[in-house]
Amino acid sequence: MPRARFITLEGGEGAGKSTQVRRLAARLEAAGQRVTITREPGGAPGAEAIRHLLVTGDVARWTPKAEMLLHFAAREDHLSRTIRPALERGDWVICDRFVDSTMAYQGFAQGLGPELVNELKEIVIGDDMPGLTLILDLPVETGLARAGSRGQGAEDRYERMDLRFHETLRQAFETIAKNEPERCVMVDASQTEDEVAEAIWAEVKPRLS
Amino acid sequence: MPRARFITLEGGEGAGKSTQVRRLAARLEAAGQRVTITREPGGAPGAEAIRHLLVTGDVARWTPKAEMLLHFAAREDHLSRTIRPALERGDWVICDRFVDSTMAYQGFAQGLGPELVNELKEIVIGDDMPGLTLILDLPVETGLARAGSRGQGAEDRYERMDLRFHETLRQAFETIAKNEPERCVMVDASQTEDEVAEAIWAEVKPRLS
Ligand SMILES: Nc1ncnc2c1ncn2[C@@H]1O[C@H](COP(=O)(O)OP(=O)(O)OP(=O)(O)O)[C@@H](O)[C@H]1O
Ligand SMILES: Nc1ncnc2c1ncn2[C@@H]1O[C@H](COP(=O)(O)OP(=O)(O)OP(=O)(O)O)[C@@H](O)[C@H]1O
Ligand SMILES: [Mg+2]
Ligand SMILES: [Mg+2]
Repeated sequence: MPRARFITLEGGEGAGKSTQVRRLAARLEAAGQRVTITREPGGAPGAEAIRHLLVTGDVARWTPKAEMLLHFAAREDHLSRTIRPALERGDWVICDRFVDSTMAYQGFAQGLGPELVNELKEIVIGDDMPGLTLILDLPVETGLARAGSRGQGAEDRYERMDLRFHETLRQAFETIAKNEPERCVMVDASQTEDEVAEAIWAEVKPRLS
Repeated sequence: MPRARFITLEGGEGAGKSTQVRRLAARLEAAGQRVTITREPGGAPGAEAIRHLLVTGDVARWTPKAEMLLHFAAREDHLSRTIRPALERGDWVICDRFVDSTMAYQGFAQGLGPELVNELKEIVIGDDMPGLTLILDLPVETGLARAGSRGQGAEDRYERMDLRFHETLRQAFETIAKNEPERCVMVDASQTEDEVAEAIWAEVKPRLS
Protein backbone atom coordinates (compact mmCIF):
# COMPACT_ATOMS: atom_id res chain seq x y z
CA MET A 1 0.00 0.00 0.00
CA PRO A 2 1.66 3.27 -1.08
CA ARG A 3 1.19 6.33 1.12
CA ALA A 4 -1.60 8.45 -0.42
CA ARG A 5 -0.46 11.79 1.06
CA PHE A 6 3.19 11.26 0.16
CA ILE A 7 4.07 13.13 -3.07
CA THR A 8 7.51 13.24 -4.68
CA LEU A 9 8.82 15.55 -7.40
CA GLU A 10 11.47 14.20 -9.73
CA GLY A 11 13.40 15.27 -12.82
CA GLY A 12 16.84 16.42 -13.98
CA GLU A 13 18.90 19.39 -12.80
CA GLY A 14 17.05 22.71 -13.00
CA ALA A 15 13.73 21.18 -14.06
CA GLY A 16 11.92 23.30 -11.47
CA LYS A 17 11.40 20.70 -8.71
CA SER A 18 12.25 22.95 -5.74
CA THR A 19 10.13 25.77 -7.18
CA GLN A 20 7.11 23.51 -7.66
CA VAL A 21 7.49 21.83 -4.26
CA ARG A 22 7.01 25.26 -2.67
CA ARG A 23 4.08 26.15 -4.93
CA LEU A 24 2.28 22.87 -4.33
CA ALA A 25 2.77 23.14 -0.57
CA ALA A 26 1.38 26.70 -0.59
CA ARG A 27 -1.65 25.55 -2.52
CA LEU A 28 -2.34 22.62 -0.19
CA GLU A 29 -1.97 24.90 2.84
CA ALA A 30 -4.37 27.41 1.27
CA ALA A 31 -6.80 24.49 1.03
CA GLY A 32 -6.46 24.00 4.80
CA GLN A 33 -4.04 21.05 4.72
CA ARG A 34 -0.98 20.49 6.90
CA VAL A 35 2.15 19.99 4.83
CA THR A 36 5.71 18.85 5.51
CA ILE A 37 8.17 19.97 2.84
CA THR A 38 11.35 17.95 2.58
CA ARG A 39 14.09 16.94 0.16
CA GLU A 40 16.62 14.29 -0.75
CA PRO A 41 19.37 13.56 -0.25
CA GLY A 42 18.76 14.95 3.25
CA GLY A 43 15.60 15.88 5.11
CA ALA A 44 16.81 14.82 8.58
CA PRO A 45 20.00 15.70 10.50
CA GLY A 46 21.83 12.41 9.78
CA ALA A 47 20.69 12.38 6.17
CA GLU A 48 21.87 15.97 5.68
CA ALA A 49 25.34 14.98 6.93
CA ILE A 50 25.35 12.20 4.33
CA ARG A 51 24.08 14.67 1.70
CA HIS A 52 27.19 16.73 2.23
CA LEU A 53 29.34 13.72 1.25
CA LEU A 54 27.27 13.27 -1.92
CA VAL A 55 26.75 16.70 -3.41
CA THR A 56 30.21 18.21 -2.90
CA GLY A 57 33.69 17.25 -3.99
CA ASP A 58 35.20 15.43 -6.94
CA VAL A 59 32.85 13.95 -9.55
CA ALA A 60 34.67 10.59 -9.29
CA ARG A 61 34.75 10.69 -5.50
CA TRP A 62 32.54 7.58 -5.04
CA THR A 63 32.02 4.37 -6.98
CA PRO A 64 28.42 4.16 -8.23
CA LYS A 65 27.74 1.38 -5.70
CA ALA A 66 29.05 3.40 -2.74
CA GLU A 67 27.00 6.34 -3.95
CA MET A 68 23.84 4.23 -4.15
CA LEU A 69 24.42 2.89 -0.63
CA LEU A 70 24.94 6.40 0.74
CA HIS A 71 21.70 7.57 -0.86
CA PHE A 72 19.82 4.66 0.70
CA ALA A 73 21.45 5.19 4.10
CA ALA A 74 20.30 8.83 3.95
CA ARG A 75 16.84 7.69 2.78
CA GLU A 76 16.49 5.26 5.69
CA ASP A 77 17.29 8.10 8.10
CA HIS A 78 14.92 10.47 6.29
CA LEU A 79 12.05 7.95 6.25
CA SER A 80 12.36 7.08 9.94
CA ARG A 81 13.02 10.56 11.34
CA THR A 82 10.92 12.78 9.06
CA ILE A 83 8.66 11.17 6.45
CA ARG A 84 6.92 8.38 8.41
CA PRO A 85 6.33 10.56 11.52
CA ALA A 86 4.82 13.33 9.36
CA LEU A 87 2.53 10.92 7.49
CA GLU A 88 1.49 9.32 10.76
CA ARG A 89 0.37 12.64 12.20
CA GLY A 90 -1.71 13.21 9.04
CA ASP A 91 0.50 15.69 7.16
CA TRP A 92 0.95 15.74 3.43
CA VAL A 93 4.63 15.14 2.66
CA ILE A 94 6.02 16.86 -0.43
CA CYS A 95 9.51 15.62 -1.16
CA ASP A 96 12.02 17.15 -3.59
CA ARG A 97 13.59 14.01 -5.18
CA PHE A 98 13.26 10.47 -3.82
CA VAL A 99 14.06 6.92 -4.90
CA ASP A 100 13.44 7.54 -8.62
CA SER A 101 16.45 9.85 -8.60
CA THR A 102 18.60 6.98 -7.29
CA MET A 103 17.20 4.74 -10.03
CA ALA A 104 17.84 7.38 -12.72
CA TYR A 105 21.25 8.59 -11.50
CA GLN A 106 22.90 5.47 -10.08
CA GLY A 107 20.78 2.73 -11.69
CA PHE A 108 20.77 4.11 -15.24
CA ALA A 109 23.12 7.08 -15.79
CA GLN A 110 25.95 5.66 -13.64
CA GLY A 111 25.34 2.14 -14.97
CA LEU A 112 24.59 0.07 -11.85
CA GLY A 113 21.45 -1.41 -13.40
CA PRO A 114 17.88 -1.39 -12.07
CA GLU A 115 18.03 -4.75 -10.17
CA LEU A 116 20.48 -3.56 -7.53
CA VAL A 117 18.54 -0.35 -6.93
CA ASN A 118 15.31 -2.35 -6.66
CA GLU A 119 16.91 -4.66 -4.09
CA LEU A 120 17.80 -1.71 -1.87
CA LYS A 121 14.41 -0.09 -2.52
CA GLU A 122 12.74 -3.18 -1.09
CA ILE A 123 15.06 -3.22 1.95
CA VAL A 124 14.76 0.48 2.80
CA ILE A 125 11.34 1.62 1.54
CA GLY A 126 9.18 -1.49 1.42
CA ASP A 127 5.54 -0.37 1.40
CA ASP A 128 6.28 3.28 2.11
CA MET A 129 6.31 4.39 -1.52
CA PRO A 130 4.79 7.73 -2.52
CA GLY A 131 1.21 7.69 -3.76
CA LEU A 132 2.05 10.20 -6.50
CA THR A 133 5.28 11.08 -8.27
CA LEU A 134 5.43 14.12 -10.57
CA ILE A 135 8.26 13.85 -13.08
CA LEU A 136 9.25 17.26 -14.45
CA ASP A 137 10.43 16.72 -18.00
CA LEU A 138 12.57 19.26 -19.83
CA PRO A 139 15.30 19.37 -22.50
CA VAL A 140 18.65 18.87 -20.78
CA GLU A 141 20.19 22.14 -22.01
CA THR A 142 17.26 24.18 -20.70
CA GLY A 143 17.50 22.56 -17.27
CA LEU A 144 21.25 23.03 -16.95
CA ALA A 145 20.94 26.65 -18.10
CA ARG A 146 18.24 27.28 -15.48
CA ALA A 147 20.28 25.61 -12.75
CA GLY A 148 23.45 27.44 -13.79
CA SER A 149 21.84 30.87 -13.80
CA ARG A 150 20.36 30.26 -10.37
CA GLY A 151 23.68 29.16 -8.87
CA GLN A 152 23.91 26.69 -5.99
CA GLY A 153 27.27 27.33 -4.39
CA ALA A 154 29.33 24.24 -3.68
CA GLU A 155 26.51 21.74 -4.19
CA ASP A 156 27.20 21.20 -7.86
CA ARG A 157 28.78 17.75 -8.00
CA TYR A 158 26.00 16.22 -10.12
CA GLU A 159 25.57 19.35 -12.21
CA ARG A 160 29.22 19.04 -13.27
CA MET A 161 28.68 15.62 -14.83
CA ASP A 162 28.71 15.65 -18.66
CA LEU A 163 25.86 16.25 -21.11
CA ARG A 164 25.45 12.59 -22.10
CA PHE A 165 24.98 11.77 -18.43
CA HIS A 166 22.07 14.19 -18.25
CA GLU A 167 20.52 12.86 -21.51
CA THR A 168 20.56 9.34 -20.05
CA LEU A 169 18.91 10.72 -16.93
CA ARG A 170 16.07 12.23 -18.88
CA GLN A 171 15.41 8.94 -20.70
CA ALA A 172 15.62 7.06 -17.40
CA PHE A 173 12.88 9.18 -15.83
CA GLU A 174 10.72 8.51 -18.90
CA THR A 175 11.28 4.76 -18.51
CA ILE A 176 10.40 4.91 -14.82
CA ALA A 177 7.16 6.77 -15.60
CA LYS A 178 6.22 4.18 -18.23
CA ASN A 179 6.89 1.29 -15.86
CA GLU A 180 4.73 2.70 -13.06
CA PRO A 181 1.86 4.62 -14.66
CA GLU A 182 -0.36 4.39 -11.55
CA ARG A 183 2.20 6.26 -9.48
CA CYS A 184 4.04 8.50 -11.97
CA VAL A 185 2.84 11.45 -14.01
CA MET A 186 5.04 13.23 -16.55
CA VAL A 187 4.74 17.02 -16.49
CA ASP A 188 5.96 19.28 -19.31
CA ALA A 189 8.37 21.47 -17.37
CA SER A 190 9.24 23.71 -20.34
CA GLN A 191 6.02 25.63 -19.69
CA THR A 192 5.94 28.76 -17.52
CA GLU A 193 6.13 28.35 -13.78
CA ASP A 194 2.40 29.09 -13.48
CA GLU A 195 1.47 26.58 -16.16
CA VAL A 196 3.55 23.85 -14.50
CA ALA A 197 1.94 24.66 -11.13
CA GLU A 198 -1.52 24.34 -12.74
CA ALA A 199 -0.66 20.98 -14.33
CA ILE A 200 0.53 19.71 -10.95
CA TRP A 201 -2.51 21.02 -9.11
CA ALA A 202 -4.76 19.25 -11.62
CA GLU A 203 -3.19 15.97 -10.45
CA VAL A 204 -3.26 16.71 -6.73
CA LYS A 205 -6.63 18.46 -6.28
CA PRO A 206 -8.76 15.33 -6.92
CA ARG A 207 -6.81 13.61 -4.09
CA LEU A 208 -7.94 16.15 -1.49
CA SER A 209 -11.26 14.53 -0.72
CA MET B 1 37.08 -17.85 -4.02
CA PRO B 2 38.18 -15.94 -0.89
CA ARG B 3 41.36 -13.87 -1.09
CA ALA B 4 44.17 -15.92 0.49
CA ARG B 5 46.35 -12.95 1.49
CA PHE B 6 43.46 -10.99 2.96
CA ILE B 7 43.37 -11.37 6.78
CA THR B 8 40.87 -9.70 9.10
CA LEU B 9 40.96 -9.30 12.89
CA GLU B 10 37.67 -9.20 14.73
CA GLY B 11 36.38 -9.07 18.29
CA GLY B 12 34.79 -6.74 20.81
CA GLU B 13 36.02 -3.39 22.14
CA GLY B 14 39.53 -3.54 23.61
CA ALA B 15 40.17 -7.17 22.62
CA GLY B 16 43.58 -6.23 21.21
CA LYS B 17 42.79 -6.10 17.49
CA SER B 18 44.77 -2.96 16.65
CA THR B 19 47.73 -4.17 18.72
CA GLN B 20 47.80 -7.55 16.97
CA VAL B 21 47.32 -6.07 13.49
CA ARG B 22 50.57 -4.17 14.01
CA ARG B 23 52.38 -7.20 15.41
CA LEU B 24 51.25 -9.50 12.62
CA ALA B 25 52.23 -6.96 9.97
CA ALA B 26 55.69 -6.56 11.53
CA ARG B 27 56.17 -10.32 11.53
CA LEU B 28 55.11 -10.69 7.90
CA GLU B 29 57.41 -7.84 6.90
CA ALA B 30 60.28 -9.46 8.80
CA ALA B 31 59.56 -12.54 6.68
CA GLY B 32 60.09 -10.40 3.55
CA GLN B 33 56.42 -9.87 2.69
CA ARG B 34 54.74 -6.66 1.56
CA VAL B 35 51.86 -5.70 3.83
CA THR B 36 49.03 -3.17 3.70
CA ILE B 37 47.57 -2.40 7.13
CA THR B 38 44.07 -1.00 7.13
CA ARG B 39 40.93 -0.73 9.25
CA GLU B 40 37.15 -0.44 9.23
CA PRO B 41 35.09 1.58 9.25
CA GLY B 42 37.48 3.61 7.12
CA GLY B 43 40.65 2.68 5.25
CA ALA B 44 40.14 5.07 2.30
CA PRO B 45 39.37 8.81 2.20
CA GLY B 46 35.64 8.47 1.49
CA ALA B 47 35.26 5.61 3.96
CA GLU B 48 37.03 7.63 6.67
CA ALA B 49 34.54 10.47 6.15
CA ILE B 50 31.74 7.93 6.66
CA ARG B 51 33.57 6.53 9.72
CA HIS B 52 33.32 9.93 11.34
CA LEU B 53 29.50 9.76 11.06
CA LEU B 54 29.52 6.31 12.69
CA VAL B 55 31.93 6.48 15.62
CA THR B 56 31.04 9.89 17.05
CA GLY B 57 27.87 11.45 18.39
CA ASP B 58 24.75 10.21 20.12
CA VAL B 59 24.35 6.45 20.66
CA ALA B 60 20.85 6.59 19.12
CA ARG B 61 21.98 8.79 16.24
CA TRP B 62 21.21 6.20 13.52
CA THR B 63 18.61 3.47 13.11
CA PRO B 64 20.30 0.04 12.92
CA LYS B 65 19.42 -0.16 9.22
CA ALA B 66 20.95 3.24 8.41
CA GLU B 67 24.01 2.25 10.38
CA MET B 68 24.36 -1.02 8.45
CA LEU B 69 24.03 0.81 5.13
CA LEU B 70 26.68 3.35 6.15
CA HIS B 71 29.08 0.55 7.11
CA PHE B 72 28.55 -1.12 3.74
CA ALA B 73 28.93 2.17 1.84
CA ALA B 74 32.26 2.69 3.63
CA ARG B 75 33.21 -0.94 2.93
CA GLU B 76 32.50 -0.56 -0.80
CA ASP B 77 34.77 2.48 -0.88
CA HIS B 78 37.45 0.69 1.15
CA LEU B 79 37.35 -2.43 -1.05
CA SER B 80 37.59 -0.50 -4.32
CA ARG B 81 40.13 2.12 -3.32
CA THR B 82 42.39 0.21 -0.90
CA ILE B 83 41.85 -3.54 -0.42
CA ARG B 84 41.44 -4.83 -3.99
CA PRO B 85 44.29 -2.68 -5.39
CA ALA B 86 46.63 -3.89 -2.60
CA LEU B 87 45.73 -7.56 -3.15
CA GLU B 88 46.14 -7.14 -6.88
CA ARG B 89 49.69 -5.85 -6.50
CA GLY B 90 50.49 -8.88 -4.32
CA ASP B 91 50.39 -7.33 -0.84
CA TRP B 92 49.07 -9.03 2.23
CA VAL B 93 46.15 -7.00 3.57
CA ILE B 94 45.67 -7.01 7.35
CA CYS B 95 42.39 -5.34 8.24
CA ASP B 96 41.26 -4.24 11.72
CA ARG B 97 37.53 -5.20 11.69
CA PHE B 98 35.54 -6.11 8.56
CA VAL B 99 32.13 -7.54 7.69
CA ASP B 100 31.90 -9.80 10.77
CA SER B 101 31.75 -6.66 12.90
CA THR B 102 28.69 -5.51 10.91
CA MET B 103 27.12 -8.94 11.42
CA ALA B 104 27.88 -8.91 15.16
CA TYR B 105 27.02 -5.25 15.87
CA GLN B 106 24.13 -4.49 13.51
CA GLY B 107 22.97 -8.02 12.65
CA PHE B 108 22.95 -9.45 16.18
CA ALA B 109 23.54 -6.84 18.93
CA GLN B 110 21.37 -4.16 17.29
CA GLY B 111 18.78 -6.75 16.20
CA LEU B 112 18.62 -6.37 12.40
CA GLY B 113 19.03 -10.11 11.87
CA PRO B 114 21.61 -12.00 9.81
CA GLU B 115 19.61 -12.17 6.54
CA LEU B 116 19.74 -8.44 5.83
CA VAL B 117 23.46 -8.26 6.57
CA ASN B 118 24.05 -11.27 4.31
CA GLU B 119 22.12 -9.59 1.49
CA LEU B 120 24.37 -6.54 1.65
CA LYS B 121 27.45 -8.75 2.07
CA GLU B 122 26.64 -10.41 -1.26
CA ILE B 123 26.06 -7.04 -2.99
CA VAL B 124 29.19 -5.33 -1.68
CA ILE B 125 31.78 -8.06 -1.06
CA GLY B 126 30.79 -10.95 -3.31
CA ASP B 127 33.86 -13.18 -3.72
CA ASP B 128 36.28 -10.80 -2.06
CA MET B 129 36.02 -12.34 1.40
CA PRO B 130 39.12 -12.69 3.60
CA GLY B 131 40.93 -16.01 3.50
CA LEU B 132 41.47 -15.91 7.26
CA THR B 133 39.62 -14.17 10.08
CA LEU B 134 41.09 -14.12 13.58
CA ILE B 135 38.44 -13.55 16.23
CA LEU B 136 39.94 -12.23 19.46
CA ASP B 137 37.80 -13.53 22.29
CA LEU B 138 37.80 -11.97 25.73
CA PRO B 139 35.44 -11.42 28.70
CA VAL B 140 33.50 -8.21 28.04
CA GLU B 141 34.60 -6.46 31.25
CA THR B 142 38.28 -7.07 30.50
CA GLY B 143 37.91 -5.65 27.00
CA LEU B 144 36.03 -2.52 28.09
CA ALA B 145 38.55 -1.96 30.90
CA ARG B 146 41.44 -2.24 28.43
CA ALA B 147 39.74 0.11 25.96
CA GLY B 148 38.83 2.58 28.70
CA SER B 149 42.34 2.73 30.16
CA ARG B 150 43.77 3.32 26.70
CA GLY B 151 41.35 6.15 25.88
CA GLN B 152 40.26 6.94 22.35
CA GLY B 153 39.08 10.53 22.44
CA ALA B 154 35.77 11.22 20.75
CA GLU B 155 35.54 7.87 18.93
CA ASP B 156 33.65 6.12 21.69
CA ARG B 157 30.10 5.83 20.37
CA TYR B 158 30.08 2.01 20.38
CA GLU B 159 32.04 1.79 23.62
CA ARG B 160 29.28 3.75 25.35
CA MET B 161 26.63 1.12 24.52
CA ASP B 162 25.55 -0.95 27.54
CA LEU B 163 27.04 -4.15 28.95
CA ARG B 164 24.33 -6.45 27.57
CA PHE B 165 25.07 -5.08 24.12
CA HIS B 166 28.69 -6.16 24.49
CA GLU B 167 27.72 -9.61 25.83
CA THR B 168 25.54 -10.18 22.77
CA LEU B 169 28.47 -9.10 20.61
CA ARG B 170 30.76 -11.68 22.14
CA GLN B 171 28.22 -14.47 21.55
CA ALA B 172 27.67 -13.23 18.01
CA PHE B 173 31.36 -13.53 17.14
CA GLU B 174 31.31 -17.06 18.54
CA THR B 175 28.33 -17.93 16.34
CA ILE B 176 30.05 -16.49 13.28
CA ALA B 177 33.18 -18.55 13.99
CA LYS B 178 31.09 -21.73 14.34
CA ASN B 179 29.24 -21.06 11.07
CA GLU B 180 32.41 -20.54 9.03
CA PRO B 181 35.12 -22.77 10.51
CA GLU B 182 37.23 -22.78 7.30
CA ARG B 183 37.64 -19.02 7.47
CA CYS B 184 37.43 -18.15 11.17
CA VAL B 185 39.75 -18.99 14.05
CA MET B 186 38.96 -18.08 17.66
CA VAL B 187 41.95 -16.74 19.60
CA ASP B 188 42.04 -16.52 23.41
CA ALA B 189 42.72 -12.81 23.83
CA SER B 190 42.97 -12.92 27.62
CA GLN B 191 46.55 -14.16 27.24
CA THR B 192 49.52 -11.79 27.25
CA GLU B 193 50.17 -9.72 24.15
CA ASP B 194 53.12 -11.99 23.24
CA GLU B 195 51.06 -15.15 23.66
CA VAL B 196 48.26 -13.80 21.48
CA ALA B 197 50.81 -12.79 18.84
CA GLU B 198 52.24 -16.35 18.90
CA ALA B 199 48.78 -17.92 18.54
CA ILE B 200 48.11 -15.68 15.54
CA TRP B 201 51.46 -16.38 13.94
CA ALA B 202 50.82 -20.12 14.28
CA GLU B 203 47.77 -19.61 12.01
CA VAL B 204 49.44 -17.33 9.48
CA LYS B 205 52.91 -18.86 9.12
CA PRO B 206 51.74 -22.02 7.26
CA ARG B 207 50.09 -19.70 4.68
CA LEU B 208 53.40 -18.10 3.72
CA SER B 209 54.46 -20.74 1.24
N1 LIG C 1 8.88 26.92 -15.49
C1 LIG C 1 10.00 27.64 -15.37
N2 LIG C 1 10.41 28.45 -16.36
C2 LIG C 1 11.56 29.14 -16.26
N3 LIG C 1 12.37 29.12 -15.19
C3 LIG C 1 12.02 28.32 -14.16
C4 LIG C 1 10.82 27.56 -14.20
N4 LIG C 1 10.74 26.86 -13.01
C5 LIG C 1 11.83 27.19 -12.29
N5 LIG C 1 12.60 28.09 -12.98
C6 LIG C 1 13.88 28.66 -12.54
O1 LIG C 1 14.90 27.71 -12.90
C7 LIG C 1 15.86 27.61 -11.87
C8 LIG C 1 15.90 26.16 -11.36
O2 LIG C 1 14.65 25.88 -10.71
P1 LIG C 1 14.61 24.93 -9.44
O3 LIG C 1 15.69 25.31 -8.50
O4 LIG C 1 13.22 24.89 -8.94
O5 LIG C 1 14.98 23.55 -10.18
P2 LIG C 1 15.36 22.16 -9.52
O6 LIG C 1 14.72 21.12 -10.40
O7 LIG C 1 15.03 22.15 -8.09
O8 LIG C 1 16.94 22.15 -9.74
P3 LIG C 1 18.04 21.19 -9.02
O9 LIG C 1 17.91 19.85 -9.66
O10 LIG C 1 19.36 21.81 -9.37
O11 LIG C 1 17.72 21.21 -7.55
C9 LIG C 1 15.46 28.62 -10.79
O12 LIG C 1 16.19 29.80 -10.99
C10 LIG C 1 13.96 28.84 -11.05
O13 LIG C 1 13.52 30.12 -10.66
N1 LIG D 1 46.96 -9.23 25.48
C1 LIG D 1 46.81 -8.07 26.12
N2 LIG D 1 46.86 -7.98 27.46
C2 LIG D 1 46.69 -6.80 28.10
N3 LIG D 1 46.49 -5.63 27.49
C3 LIG D 1 46.43 -5.65 26.14
C4 LIG D 1 46.58 -6.85 25.39
N4 LIG D 1 46.47 -6.53 24.06
C5 LIG D 1 46.25 -5.22 23.99
N5 LIG D 1 46.23 -4.66 25.25
C6 LIG D 1 46.00 -3.26 25.60
O1 LIG D 1 44.58 -3.09 25.65
C7 LIG D 1 44.20 -1.85 25.06
C8 LIG D 1 43.27 -2.12 23.90
O2 LIG D 1 44.00 -2.78 22.85
P1 LIG D 1 43.70 -2.48 21.33
O3 LIG D 1 43.57 -1.02 21.09
O4 LIG D 1 44.68 -3.24 20.50
O5 LIG D 1 42.25 -3.16 21.25
P2 LIG D 1 41.17 -3.09 20.08
O6 LIG D 1 40.58 -4.43 19.99
O7 LIG D 1 41.79 -2.53 18.85
O8 LIG D 1 40.14 -2.05 20.69
P3 LIG D 1 38.95 -1.22 19.92
O9 LIG D 1 37.87 -2.20 19.64
O10 LIG D 1 38.52 -0.19 20.92
O11 LIG D 1 39.59 -0.64 18.70
C9 LIG D 1 45.51 -1.15 24.67
O12 LIG D 1 45.86 -0.27 25.69
C10 LIG D 1 46.49 -2.31 24.55
O13 LIG D 1 47.82 -1.90 24.82
MG1 LIG E 1 16.25 21.85 -6.41
MG1 LIG F 1 41.29 -0.84 17.73
